[in-house]
Amino acid sequence: VTRVDEAYAQLVAALRLQADLGGVLQLLEWDQETLMPAGAIEGRARQIGTLAGLLHERQTAPAFLAVVDGLADSGAELNPQQAVDVRETKWRVDRRRRLDTALVRERSTLHAQARAVWVAARRDNDFAILAPWLGRVVETERRAAAAMDASRPAYDVLLEEYEPGASAALIEPLFADLRHGLLPLVDRIKARLDAGPLDANALCGDFPVEAQRRFNQAVAVRLGFDFNKGRLDEAAHPFTTNVGDDVRITTRYDARDLRYALYATLHETGHALYEQGLDAEAWGTPRGQSCSFGIHESQSRLWENQVGRSMAFWKHLLPAARQAFPGLARTSLESIVVAANEARPSLIRTEADEITYNLHIILRFELERALVDGSLDVAALPQVWREKMGEYLGVIPETDRDGVLQDVHWPSGAIGYFPSYALGNMYAAQLDCAAEADMGSVEAAVAAGEFRLLLSWLRQHVHRLGQTYRPVELIRVATGQLPTSRPLLDHLERRVTFLESL
Amino acid sequence: VTRVDEAYAQLVAALRLQADLGGVLQLLEWDQETLMPAGAIEGRARQIGTLAGLLHERQTAPAFLAVVDGLADSGAELNPQQAVDVRETKWRVDRRRRLDTALVRERSTLHAQARAVWVAARRDNDFAILAPWLGRVVETERRAAAAMDASRPAYDVLLEEYEPGASAALIEPLFADLRHGLLPLVDRIKARLDAGPLDANALCGDFPVEAQRRFNQAVAVRLGFDFNKGRLDEAAHPFTTNVGDDVRITTRYDARDLRYALYATLHETGHALYEQGLDAEAWGTPRGQSCSFGIHESQSRLWENQVGRSMAFWKHLLPAARQAFPGLARTSLESIVVAANEARPSLIRTEADEITYNLHIILRFELERALVDGSLDVAALPQVWREKMGEYLGVIPETDRDGVLQDVHWPSGAIGYFPSYALGNMYAAQLDCAAEADMGSVEAAVAAGEFRLLLSWLRQHVHRLGQTYRPVELIRVATGQLPTSRPLLDHLERRVTFLESL
Repeated sequence: VTRVDEAYAQLVAALRLQADLGGVLQLLEWDQETLMPAGAIEGRARQIGTLAGLLHERQTAPAFLAVVDGLADSGAELNPQQAVDVRETKWRVDRRRRLDTALVRERSTLHAQARAVWVAARRDNDFAILAPWLGRVVETERRAAAAMDASRPAYDVLLEEYEPGASAALIEPLFADLRHGLLPLVDRIKARLDAGPLDANALCGDFPVEAQRRFNQAVAVRLGFDFNKGRLDEAAHPFTTNVGDDVRITTRYDARDLRYALYATLHETGHALYEQGLDAEAWGTPRGQSCSFGIHESQSRLWENQVGRSMAFWKHLLPAARQAFPGLARTSLESIVVAANEARPSLIRTEADEITYNLHIILRFELERALVDGSLDVAALPQVWREKMGEYLGVIPETDRDGVLQDVHWPSGAIGYFPSYALGNMYAAQLDCAAEADMGSVEAAVAAGEFRLLLSWLRQHVHRLGQTYRPVELIRVATGQLPTSRPLLDHLERRVTFLESL
Repeated sequence: VTRVDEAYAQLVAALRLQADLGGVLQLLEWDQETLMPAGAIEGRARQIGTLAGLLHERQTAPAFLAVVDGLADSGAELNPQQAVDVRETKWRVDRRRRLDTALVRERSTLHAQARAVWVAARRDNDFAILAPWLGRVVETERRAAAAMDASRPAYDVLLEEYEPGASAALIEPLFADLRHGLLPLVDRIKARLDAGPLDANALCGDFPVEAQRRFNQAVAVRLGFDFNKGRLDEAAHPFTTNVGDDVRITTRYDARDLRYALYATLHETGHALYEQGLDAEAWGTPRGQSCSFGIHESQSRLWENQVGRSMAFWKHLLPAARQAFPGLARTSLESIVVAANEARPSLIRTEADEITYNLHIILRFELERALVDGSLDVAALPQVWREKMGEYLGVIPETDRDGVLQDVHWPSGAIGYFPSYALGNMYAAQLDCAAEADMGSVEAAVAAGEFRLLLSWLRQHVHRLGQTYRPVELIRVATGQLPTSRPLLDHLERRVTFLESL
């Protein structure tokens, strides 16, 4: 055993201890969102704070940092796998240690306060009470970015928290292309709707929640979700969490609309398949962890959209759906696919369809970037928001509640997060095309219910790799192309053409 | 602020951090028993190990020990509340630090192994494969006891893990009295059963699990369980856990027998009411923690037995039970009380009735004490078990599975645990009598569904006190008497008389 191997073993042991604490934190939060009695909230917040503090202690312990630095200095002696783990750990550790404890504490207190103010501001539709807090959040994030890396634009430093290796310079042309391609699609949707109403009610009706629970469970199993190492529960805001070799997804049911739960389940199952597909041998190390928020979102979107809204998927699923819900006995395949692809420009991001969704993200990227570089003032946000909504989607919110107050991200300090949603959509389309090119017809496999084919391809080209590559490089290696909006625009164009054909 | 107050504040902060970690460990275990997918067991064991290690680090950190020792040396300067917290913390800390890390690790490994062997031995009804492991467990527990306090009998040192301040010298005469009083009661039960069958089937029939869930939930609410800070779920072996201001009970349902879930729920609700009644101001400190295993068991038993098997309780509950289960429409009150008090000598402790149960415990106390002091050899256990079962209960197990292999306690290293079950039964009867003497008729209050009266009394005399007194003293202060078997024997004698009257 060499000195380097010994140090690497120490690194892995430390990272795994940190991963255990991280998994426990995930369970505390999962339990809070799903099952915890309301009165336990204070105690739970304290437990989470205590555990997060212990994790932070470990992550910044001098002995741990010394191991990381020592390994980073012995670059040439590392084997390729070790090199990945050292590169990614060193990168995260360096970002973290440049933030002093006072700033870390200031940020988390400020975010908690601003989040609470946001709840009230949204309830009362009163942006004015949030504005000063948002100003403080932006200013504090700028300071944090400067501490982490003063040599680069603050926005890029923040963005990298979610999408390592990305930058505004990379995203801007991608989003410009995407916007350029989407605006005509939005016009075509509007024209189609002006020409006459779409009958998109095939999945509305009477769908008892208990039957939906069984149905969603079965759908997750069909896609490949492993219930031996996971669960499906309910939460107000669906999410996926990995408690540690134990991946839990949540959905929420609407007894009058089958789509509500089903597409949340498909989305979260996509996240879960990624987590369940990570390399178990490498658990706790960067090679055993997901690559980025954008890549994670690509997995959820691919299963939700490329797969779940396709004619092929419903060809496969319809018999089971009819068995679960006798009311669907005479509902046609085509009418269901219409319901699954209903589209129209709208105000709320989380309720937006697959096509217009991306414009909601581009708007937020433009605004948050301008906030951080100082070219946009917080006070001007509501007005600029309305202008851009009019320009991109042709709909203008009457209230800030339906406008700039709708998302929790900025008050929570999550600036630089939004781009990963649209990047995920682009990556999903690129990966879908690459899988199609590699495997022959993904569509035929989906129609036959053979989801394992697509899943194996994703396992091999995405899941198993963990953080071996950074997201842009991962996409290049997996698809043969750098990130690009073309496949997504082609995919969405086909959706619009389908709606026009009705 | 004096130097002592400052040190005490440090003590409280350290204890609360430890309590948070303890609460998180409780959640990990609760989740494992109720919801966790089977495949996550390895990861969960690792998380529990990691967190238990961190907790142990904190509990044995030199800075923490120095604070405890410093406070223990400034006895006269402590106010009475501080004195309690220092006394109890010092006592636990001293026990813990006298065990070296190697022995701590040896014990937990050995207990895990012996427990696994026990599972196989019980399955295969093969005591011989367990015997050498049990021998090692006894020997290791003797060494641990000697390390903790070589000046006292090993059994007493082990016993105090569960019942601080207790000793075999205290328990032996209590149990001798109890046994002396129980043997004639067992004879009377046998005589009653010989005279003709008891019709005890009133609570057997068709009780759909979903209706039982609602019913048990409602019963817990009636007794005073606070669902704003707690839950009721299902587990194979019902238990109660306090996750931190969040008390979770579990039960298990038998669709053919209402008693199965109901009496588990009453039992666990008793434990839960204790936890929910602890002094929230003192959380994390000994004053905010339960007094002992025996006192805890007194709370579960009091609600399960003194309350839950009484005619008064069923007078109150029957209308609700009939509403929940229309099959009970014509079932008489008396026949239900008979079903709730069915008694007969039997082989399995966990299935024993209220009366014979105590003899199962006395037998185990006698055997484990003899094992520890060396007067009984492990190899002789099955034979001595059979002899004592014949002597005390008149039934002799045909297999060791129904005899010495039935309990997990000894293989798990829990030697000294069993007495707390019978002590709990004695304490419950004493507390019930004292409450009756203080409040007038507990029975009338129960019949009127006014459980709050009894609960308030228990809050004041037991729950709120935490570890202010050690168990024997708590009972003396609360009831005016040292622990005694008389009230329990009187209570059980009334039960037998009732069965004889039928």
